[in-house]
Amino acid sequence: MKLYNYFRSSASFRVRIALALKGLDYEYAPVHLLKDGGQQFAAGFKAMNPAALVPVLDDNGTVLTQSLAIIEYLDETRPQPPLLPNDAAGRARVRALALTVACEIHPLHNLRVLGYLSNTLNVSDEQKNAWYRHWVETGLETLEQMLASDSRTGLCCHGDTPTLADICLVPQIFNAQRFKARLDHVPTVMRIHEHCLTLPAFARSVPALQPDAE
Amino acid sequence: MKLYNYFRSSASFRVRIALALKGLDYEYAPVHLLKDGGQQFAAGFKAMNPAALVPVLDDNGTVLTQSLAIIEYLDETRPQPPLLPNDAAGRARVRALALTVACEIHPLHNLRVLGYLSNTLNVSDEQKNAWYRHWVETGLETLEQMLASDSRTGLCCHGDTPTLADICLVPQIFNAQRFKARLDHVPTVMRIHEHCLTLPAFARSVPALQPDAE
Repeated sequence: MKLYNYFRSSASFRVRIALALKGLDYEYAPVHLLKDGGQQFAAGFKAMNPAALVPVLDDNGTVLTQSLAIIEYLDETRPQPPLLPNDAAGRARVRALALTVACEIHPLHNLRVLGYLSNTLNVSDEQKNAWYRHWVETGLETLEQMLASDSRTGLCCHGDTPTLADICLVPQIFNAQRFKARLDHVPTVMRIHEHCLTLPAFARSVPALQPDAE
Repeated sequence: MKLYNYFRSSASFRVRIALALKGLDYEYAPVHLLKDGGQQFAAGFKAMNPAALVPVLDDNGTVLTQSLAIIEYLDETRPQPPLLPNDAAGRARVRALALTVACEIHPLHNLRVLGYLSNTLNVSDEQKNAWYRHWVETGLETLEQMLASDSRTGLCCHGDTPTLADICLVPQIFNAQRFKARLDHVPTVMRIHEHCLTLPAFARSVPALQPDAE
């Protein structure tokens, strides 16, 4: 398996955690999102992923894109340990938590969106940072309410073992910390984040430990 | 089953199509996103969904949020007809197509994001419309390339029967048409869109035919 990846990308980070939880080895292929005008726009990479986004996972010729689709694929083809609960309602809850990060928070602050704000809409750095914090802080507040109000929340988002929800939560918190977003209003989120980082699969997937880390 | 819904919401539209494909009856509970300062912010609704977003599906007491999680739940609990292919690689492809709409296009132009651009960043209507078209047109171009370059594309996004990918594609095109985005650069997307609308489950789920349509 070969993972096309950028150390700081939250979506890449998600897939690294999933691969580590499954105990799968892979070749790390760095794609630098800022160098060379963005290596994700190179013709060779776009032929593999027209979206020009990382991560891409090549599983022996099966080329997969979109982090959540990749993780569901890994869970179907390498079922142990499972990354989704056994029951349909639990799976729906875990997916909803994951999608709250993947659809409601992350898309609003990825690199190309922040670039559009600066370069096309000419907003100030202060306005751009306020935009970032608005979507991250309100999105995490939603996540906090979803977690704090539900008895299925345990050491992790759903019970005591990591699922797709934790795999999305932890990279989002790394991103929030990097941009200095407020986090004192989401104690359940942070408790889970800190617990996950005690687990080797999460700890060794952090951006700073990747081959392309700067 | 009770579906909390807004006729124009793309995410609501996705769930309506899935319910119709499965042949499931449901009570339609309108949540007007613009009236009363946004009925999704009412305490009763937020107690059910802290994200203050439609759709919400109440399946006999099991309260589900996030359209893609709801649709996966429906597919698991009412398997016929299936909304995902049989093989893991096919499922990954369909989920990646769906997520391309749900993570790369839709989050950038939903109501609250357009509201922030106008009310907080004070961008002009012209700039707001350019933002809308930028993300929709480039996102659909990605979808076009993913579809046109893959022999698994058929009458629908994946083969000849509707999947989760078509369920996401059609509402996005309705939205794009409403905001007058360019669509002549995505012929495969439009061919699939038009085919889907010949199917009763899609045709009867369109915004104009819902009880709260204006």
